[in-house]
Amino acid sequence: MKIRKPFKIIAFDADDTLWINEPHYGEVEHQVENLLKQYLDAPDLKEQLYAREKVNLKLFGYGAKGFVLSLIETAIELTDSKISAADIHQIISWGKDMLTRPIEVLEGVENVLHELEEDYALMLLTKGDLFDQESKLARSNLARYFTHVEIVSEKNEQVYQGILDRYGIAASDLLMVGNSLRSDILPMVEIGVTAIHIPYHTTWVHELVNSKEAEKTSYLEFEQISKVLDWVRS
Amino acid sequence: MKIRKPFKIIAFDADDTLWINEPHYGEVEHQVENLLKQYLDAPDLKEQLYAREKVNLKLFGYGAKGFVLSLIETAIELTDSKISAADIHQIISWGKDMLTRPIEVLEGVENVLHELEEDYALMLLTKGDLFDQESKLARSNLARYFTHVEIVSEKNEQVYQGILDRYGIAASDLLMVGNSLRSDILPMVEIGVTAIHIPYHTTWVHELVNSKEAEKTSYLEFEQISKVLDWVRS
Repeated sequence: MKIRKPFKIIAFDADDTLWINEPHYGEVEHQVENLLKQYLDAPDLKEQLYAREKVNLKLFGYGAKGFVLSLIETAIELTDSKISAADIHQIISWGKDMLTRPIEVLEGVENVLHELEEDYALMLLTKGDLFDQESKLARSNLARYFTHVEIVSEKNEQVYQGILDRYGIAASDLLMVGNSLRSDILPMVEIGVTAIHIPYHTTWVHELVNSKEAEKTSYLEFEQISKVLDWVRS
Repeated sequence: MKIRKPFKIIAFDADDTLWINEPHYGEVEHQVENLLKQYLDAPDLKEQLYAREKVNLKLFGYGAKGFVLSLIETAIELTDSKISAADIHQIISWGKDMLTRPIEVLEGVENVLHELEEDYALMLLTKGDLFDQESKLARSNLARYFTHVEIVSEKNEQVYQGILDRYGIAASDLLMVGNSLRSDILPMVEIGVTAIHIPYHTTWVHELVNSKEAEKTSYLEFEQISKVLDWVRS
């Protein structure tokens, strides 16, 4: 008899858990900051952009299209409306590149999915823009491993509990794997789900939690996604 | 015994079926066209915008954020990059208004939902931007009537069949109500679902079908949503 932990579904976050995402946002920010050097001596895009994004999040939600709109607004604001239409067009064009570039699947991911799908139903559980996330999943060639795909506009306890209810499973039936303590781990643990944190080297400031918040919570943390396999089978 | 047709779920499209949507897009188009009169004698925004939207649909999907990005691109292209950053900011601001304005529920809708929810599970089945559609549903105060909410990135036979499979119901268990022949009616009828067309006075050109396509298909058409109630109970 094979030894394996008795979960019914194993759910994976997508961005920066299965494939590279945040660095591409960082690259575009860097490109726009360089572009703004025609207008400003030392453009401090990062801080202003995040302030703008935080306000716009209530209107736009997560994802690349809202990011591009926030970038344009921030560039207009920082340059006192001096930025040219051609440069704004360039920002849109960089945003479009983000939406079509090939998806770089992280090391070890495909093997983990391949091995786990034998024993478990796998779920992709990601937040963001519906169209963008579906497109990334298609481009990643990982869609075949997932029995369930849940794209949500926010990741919190209420949304996660709603998914458990909808699938008619108990919290103990689910294992969650993700890179964001704030989105993937803490709210899942709060509703009784076992969660494994796989840190990624870059995290969007919006996803950061202070260490005190995380310390109160009990979750697993592995450096590599391949360790999920060992743990599930131990 | 009450007489009622034996569906398990009644699904409703949202935009221009439950609440006003397309006219708001038209208003913003009109505002932008007026804005462009500073730059052009007779700006023909509509045609150019639709050409741009058709190309961008593959990248952006449906919804207000992609619409605003397409508007900005079209305005830059039409003005040969002469449009000012301040005017682009104005376009973004009109786009934001679309995302927050009160939802005007169409006449008769609330009563139909109220009556039908006694006998059926109701589903909101809409395409577009996840965050935008969830926000509209919340603002509409209609969320309480819906047992199921399905927001999809495209409405076609495959997507609809996927929903039937996921809910474990037969095509004959579902009744669909919507204003778009192309999205709500024809693909549903194609997979064997009964569909009721409630035409709306304005339809986005992308949603139009030629009459030959529609003639081959058998569906119901009522002028007012209140007639759905009579039909279901007859």
